[in-house]
Amino acid sequence: MSHPIAPHGSAQLRPLLVPAEERIAALAHAATLPRLTVSSREAGDIIMLGIGGFTPLSGFMGHADWHGVVTEMKLASGLFWPIPITLSTSAEQAEGLALGQELALADAAGNLLAILTLEEKYRIDKALEAREVFRTEDPAHPGVAALYAQGEVNLGGSLRVLSEGDFPERFPGVYLTPAQTRGLIAERGWKTVAAFQTRNPMHRSHEYLAKIALEVCDGVLIHSLLGNLKAGDIPSEVRVQAIDALTGKYFVEDSVISAGYPLDMRYAGPREALLHALFRQNYGCTHLIVGRDHAGVGDYYGPFDAQRVFDELPAGSLLTQPLKIDWTFWCEACASMASTKTCPHDASQRLLLSGSKLRKLLSEGGEVPAQFSRPEVLDILRAYYAGLEAHERVEVTLVGASAK
Amino acid sequence: MSHPIAPHGSAQLRPLLVPAEERIAALAHAATLPRLTVSSREAGDIIMLGIGGFTPLSGFMGHADWHGVVTEMKLASGLFWPIPITLSTSAEQAEGLALGQELALADAAGNLLAILTLEEKYRIDKALEAREVFRTEDPAHPGVAALYAQGEVNLGGSLRVLSEGDFPERFPGVYLTPAQTRGLIAERGWKTVAAFQTRNPMHRSHEYLAKIALEVCDGVLIHSLLGNLKAGDIPSEVRVQAIDALTGKYFVEDSVISAGYPLDMRYAGPREALLHALFRQNYGCTHLIVGRDHAGVGDYYGPFDAQRVFDELPAGSLLTQPLKIDWTFWCEACASMASTKTCPHDASQRLLLSGSKLRKLLSEGGEVPAQFSRPEVLDILRAYYAGLEAHERVEVTLVGASAK
Repeated sequence: MSHPIAPHGSAQLRPLLVPAEERIAALAHAATLPRLTVSSREAGDIIMLGIGGFTPLSGFMGHADWHGVVTEMKLASGLFWPIPITLSTSAEQAEGLALGQELALADAAGNLLAILTLEEKYRIDKALEAREVFRTEDPAHPGVAALYAQGEVNLGGSLRVLSEGDFPERFPGVYLTPAQTRGLIAERGWKTVAAFQTRNPMHRSHEYLAKIALEVCDGVLIHSLLGNLKAGDIPSEVRVQAIDALTGKYFVEDSVISAGYPLDMRYAGPREALLHALFRQNYGCTHLIVGRDHAGVGDYYGPFDAQRVFDELPAGSLLTQPLKIDWTFWCEACASMASTKTCPHDASQRLLLSGSKLRKLLSEGGEVPAQFSRPEVLDILRAYYAGLEAHERVEVTLVGASAK
Repeated sequence: MSHPIAPHGSAQLRPLLVPAEERIAALAHAATLPRLTVSSREAGDIIMLGIGGFTPLSGFMGHADWHGVVTEMKLASGLFWPIPITLSTSAEQAEGLALGQELALADAAGNLLAILTLEEKYRIDKALEAREVFRTEDPAHPGVAALYAQGEVNLGGSLRVLSEGDFPERFPGVYLTPAQTRGLIAERGWKTVAAFQTRNPMHRSHEYLAKIALEVCDGVLIHSLLGNLKAGDIPSEVRVQAIDALTGKYFVEDSVISAGYPLDMRYAGPREALLHALFRQNYGCTHLIVGRDHAGVGDYYGPFDAQRVFDELPAGSLLTQPLKIDWTFWCEACASMASTKTCPHDASQRLLLSGSKLRKLLSEGGEVPAQFSRPEVLDILRAYYAGLEAHERVEVTLVGASAK
């Protein structure tokens, strides 16, 4: 079946997963190799490389790619790439590694994820990467903190990926590879598909974003981040359940594909928005919805920086285009969902709830207006918070008991 | 100021209006020429040619252009053009006209509109034009009826346009030329502009179409047809007033330009949708909202024929792209405006009123739900129907009196 959009910089997806029939032999071989434990962010990147989401990369970046990406958003080949995909280790550990050797990469739980053929060891200017990629050197920024916490030496080289981690088991039917997602899109005959990136349950403001996209595209891919978030965020499992409840009742069947991808958040704002568009191209999407403060955190980015950054790219950098949409909310005077672009009324007419206010309402049995969130979604969140609080009460009790 | 989109087939607009300082001399000259009275449709076309809305045409089409447009949607030059722009007269009148001579063209009220330099006289196969352009030879189709009613001989030649008719006086601030409209768009710095074609007052379903466009484009041109419609339609003046009431209260200031253009409806469905996109390109719009049964009438066209026809064009035919949107309505279960693409609920949840039902409600003091139309719009329509009925009652009384 023909597909409306080619992968990034390649006619075909380039998944680095070892074919299933060679997997056992490769795992046995990996078990004999020196082992490196990777971070959660690196583990997500390995799986993304494995399933072809980072096509056309062949592994972790070497110095020339790292430098080009950081300073010019270009690989050494000239191809557009907005965020370094790198692996790092301590200087001490790097010392003992020889170029050309193979390394087994394992996650924190000890699962073997990949075999790296080491091609380069190099030190980086972390402050440069922070400034260019995150637009700040502030160590309070979670992405910068992770960068500063990583080892001193980057390891570049090609990868053979051995595992998709626990994503297939944890998210059956939701965790889909780029090839599977492209297959579904082709099956439905969609010519235009907008990806809706989400790391939160979908309230009516998010539903509205997805529905605007649906009005102007053939279909929408609701694409949930399944990797790690900041503490306090709603876990992926709960989020996926809430999204299913929403789409099941308020979307036309077969107008959306609800799925997820294995990365952690980097919170790099504009640069991450570009990466989100890039890998959505690999997943077969022609558009990415870019809302207010996309992939941002705190006040590090202006609310529309992530939209504007697309305008600054050289033509042809990305096939997937941004669908830029403003801040959305229910407006009483409009008697509808609206955005700052379509609603002329003042704040007193607009229904806006912060995450913490919502949590307070849900935890304490307060009423959340149906204009803010669908009752079916609220039920799931209420159940989650109830469980969480029971759990927290138990912990408090135990702590109290042991303190006596 | 730079503009996001070039006119059709030309780097510059090509208005055929005689410059203001030569207008008096040209009118005096026209008064000495043999005179032809043109139809309302032809008068609209002349004014559109005059203001550059039909760039790059230099006048009424000759036979090669007519034939290419009818059969292949191409001018003799190869440039895309979907509907013939022709002038016709009776065989008898044509007999007395010599190639190379000048003719004054006047509207039914006797106003001089243009000077035609006659370059061609030719007969056409009306059934061919009907089949190809209107997809029917049924004389009950109003566009086909007008074609069959026109004279037997078409007159091709270049035009010098002398007047914009009464549009500037009747619609001050609303009737804008393509150059004026482009000027406003450039002033606002819009890179993407969607035209919303309308020949009706805007209810919430139309507001929703325009607002979807606004969510994904920088601005919207609400573009009213100011020429003639079918009997029973709301007059342009009332429609413009109703649109102003809507945009004044429910749209962000400077997010829309409300304006109009001088053509009559042809009701050619898909082919007219293409013409609508073509001249919107000349007005500086990057997109045209194409809804359900765009420019259709009765049951002559499938509801999405006018959307699909854009997919069949050779690449590059038009720069202005369709923004295809489905049938829109208020849905009670969605508790929002929606379309058949975004609402999964059944007809019992959807608020749909026919034009005749709405008129009945408005005339008889019935309540029209605010979810169907804004109260400010309904007030204007109620006042219009009240005036109309008073007028009709007077007419009925007079007819009754004279019959006695």
